[in-house]
Amino acid sequence: MREILIVGAGKSTSVLINYLLDQSEKENLSLRIGDLDHSAAQKACKGHPNCEAFELDVFKAESREPAIQRADIVISMLPARFHIEVARDCLKFGKNMVTASYISEEMKALDEAVKQKGLVFMNEIGVDPGIDHMSAMKVIDKIRDHGGKMLLFESFTGGLVAPESDNNLWNYKFTWNPRNVVVAGQGGVAEFIQEGKYKYIPYHRLFRRTEFLEIEGHGKFEVYANRNSLKYQSIYGLDDVLTLYRGTMRKVGFSRAWNMFVQLGMTDDSFVMKNTEDMSYRDFVNSFLPYSPKDSVELKVRHNLKIDQDDIMWDKLIELDLFNPEKKIGIKEATPAQALQKILMDKWTLSQDDKDMIVMYHKFGYELNGEKKQIDSTMVAIGENMTETAMAKTVGLPVAMAAIMILNGEIETPGVQLPIRKEVYNPILEKLEAFDIKFQEKETEYLGYNPFGEVGN
Amino acid sequence: MREILIVGAGKSTSVLINYLLDQSEKENLSLRIGDLDHSAAQKACKGHPNCEAFELDVFKAESREPAIQRADIVISMLPARFHIEVARDCLKFGKNMVTASYISEEMKALDEAVKQKGLVFMNEIGVDPGIDHMSAMKVIDKIRDHGGKMLLFESFTGGLVAPESDNNLWNYKFTWNPRNVVVAGQGGVAEFIQEGKYKYIPYHRLFRRTEFLEIEGHGKFEVYANRNSLKYQSIYGLDDVLTLYRGTMRKVGFSRAWNMFVQLGMTDDSFVMKNTEDMSYRDFVNSFLPYSPKDSVELKVRHNLKIDQDDIMWDKLIELDLFNPEKKIGIKEATPAQALQKILMDKWTLSQDDKDMIVMYHKFGYELNGEKKQIDSTMVAIGENMTETAMAKTVGLPVAMAAIMILNGEIETPGVQLPIRKEVYNPILEKLEAFDIKFQEKETEYLGYNPFGEVGN
Repeated sequence: MREILIVGAGKSTSVLINYLLDQSEKENLSLRIGDLDHSAAQKACKGHPNCEAFELDVFKAESREPAIQRADIVISMLPARFHIEVARDCLKFGKNMVTASYISEEMKALDEAVKQKGLVFMNEIGVDPGIDHMSAMKVIDKIRDHGGKMLLFESFTGGLVAPESDNNLWNYKFTWNPRNVVVAGQGGVAEFIQEGKYKYIPYHRLFRRTEFLEIEGHGKFEVYANRNSLKYQSIYGLDDVLTLYRGTMRKVGFSRAWNMFVQLGMTDDSFVMKNTEDMSYRDFVNSFLPYSPKDSVELKVRHNLKIDQDDIMWDKLIELDLFNPEKKIGIKEATPAQALQKILMDKWTLSQDDKDMIVMYHKFGYELNGEKKQIDSTMVAIGENMTETAMAKTVGLPVAMAAIMILNGEIETPGVQLPIRKEVYNPILEKLEAFDIKFQEKETEYLGYNPFGEVGN
Repeated sequence: MREILIVGAGKSTSVLINYLLDQSEKENLSLRIGDLDHSAAQKACKGHPNCEAFELDVFKAESREPAIQRADIVISMLPARFHIEVARDCLKFGKNMVTASYISEEMKALDEAVKQKGLVFMNEIGVDPGIDHMSAMKVIDKIRDHGGKMLLFESFTGGLVAPESDNNLWNYKFTWNPRNVVVAGQGGVAEFIQEGKYKYIPYHRLFRRTEFLEIEGHGKFEVYANRNSLKYQSIYGLDDVLTLYRGTMRKVGFSRAWNMFVQLGMTDDSFVMKNTEDMSYRDFVNSFLPYSPKDSVELKVRHNLKIDQDDIMWDKLIELDLFNPEKKIGIKEATPAQALQKILMDKWTLSQDDKDMIVMYHKFGYELNGEKKQIDSTMVAIGENMTETAMAKTVGLPVAMAAIMILNGEIETPGVQLPIRKEVYNPILEKLEAFDIKFQEKETEYLGYNPFGEVGN
């Protein structure tokens, strides 16, 4: 039996663990699931004979080291900032490792040592990052293998609510960490390239500079720019590309509404407000508006944001019960972002029967034999239920698949890796199709942003 | 002879040095001026017999220590972050010290040791901070001495161009450090209290949430909120006050125009742009706008900022030559704020004959014998010329006066101080009147923000 250690048994690990247990007979696997909360680990094992749960405190060497030492491979499903504790031991004891998180600077610094030991530390192999890398590199490599030259790459992902569960005015619910949604776009300017020109969008304009997309059979979406569009430019080999743009997808109308919070200052996470424990939702809103002895908070918001009385934006605010003088934030020393998250979680939490949806859209523009062409590649995945979400599937399955492939020696390039090599993405993308995670590729006319080759701005 | 050491002979020290030299006979003073640039120190001495210039490198102990050791008092006119080097030696050698800068955390940490040695480290005794503290505390103490209870304190200062030199559409020129103007309001939310309610303004709304003021004989001004309105709440003894608001004054229309830069993202100082050395003003503007193969940069700005064709905002942009495709930023690895500063300095630098103007406005609301009252206190100072600016006068004179008073034992409360005590502000405010730096106090009807005592928001 080959022993897989899974560190962390959070909600998002269900599909990962199910897949590994399903494969455990055929692949000769035994699973050990370690979590600070023993009962969570036990629950994750579901009484399967090839699974053992135990208590694991990742910050205690005496708890962590023996577990890592006896494993054949380690999957860390901890919050990203804790992976490094696991990674250092994996290096020490010569174990391969898999995570679904972005490669941190600390993790990157281990690359040389990991290579020297011939180990594979595979990261960024969830959905975003993960499936986005794999599905993009598959098309980029194909274009290059045919002698094409990349001109444009745009890539958009959204974690959304499935149409059958889409029953609020925002067309949105929290399908992943709510905090990440509230502070999305903060911490730096959004930087990208369009037709060879560097473009910058400050945070307070981000949700007004959206673009539209349509996915056949799924309707219209909008996109706001990610901060890090240029992050993978060199990694993907796109240094000469004219357009490079990455973004986040939402249903049309979300960004314009979200911008109301941004404009008021409610998404700020950089300072603590006074008296938030006892603060009503109404008082929270009023903190961002001028004092007035006569005017209502409602009218001040309308005037401040220039919302006409028949504008759907207003209904979106009302739906959130934002002006309620009774409901309390109830958090000590909350930042505006934390207070807003509390208000949104009242309305945007998935209910038992709700399904989520992951949407991904890549555009590849290229030149082949003097002709400009474009391939669009789209994927839509719908969750089964509140546990087997599309998010849990698209994150958990590639992690599990990569772990088995590393155990089997099918992925063997050593170092701190991300899944951009054919040996990784080809088999995993193929295996994912059995789970209805499929990309539709379509050749279309190349337009870019300057179809007639004018001197653009 | 008592020896005064002045560390740093920058442009802003002229009035300070003139005053001390003028007093040197009567007060028995000899001046030593130390600067990294010996010739700057020499120029500052103007050949006066009681003045000696020398080269001083504040980061070298062998240069700094002997100069401080032989002085009777030290005035540091260095940039604020360097005062601490001087302060530590003053403590070591038992010397009193004066600066015009905000008390830093490092400086504050010396308080106990400074007290133990019976030394006076007087800080924040320029104009803002400085004259604002003194003129405010004078009225606040007077109200309290008469048994009044403070309800409201608002304080506004502006460094502006004098009416006779006010000849551009922005009604503004750089009269002090341009960089501070470009990044003003950044680095945190603006927080203040109005009628007992805490209010927060995010940076991107700061220049749209202005208030108006009128100063008799000087016309109408506008105010945007400072970040640190609550900083002096306890120091001034205003913990129970209902309204506390500090702001920066501009001529009406400046803030709405400045907001265009904020909205585009041009004041951002947190990231370096690509290719700024060769970038034209026009390309700089275009970096913050969507790509378009057809539309001009001009129309994109108009559309993005919703500027009507007959709006004066547009003329303000044109006056700055913002769309010039020939003029270059010419700075390597510039942030947007640095690039914008370059563009503005072309137009907003004081010319030889230009005069500057300092404007200060305090409002004090209080209750006395059950009656609500208000005192408004205003000061307007006009510069003599490009060297003897109102800024150099209002910063340099109180610093010089405080230094002599400390030498004479007239200011003797030990510790890391700021000028909020009667022993300091009464004589200095009186002496300043001889230089036409005078406050007009006027009793007015108390209005506050809620004159009819309604349940306000």
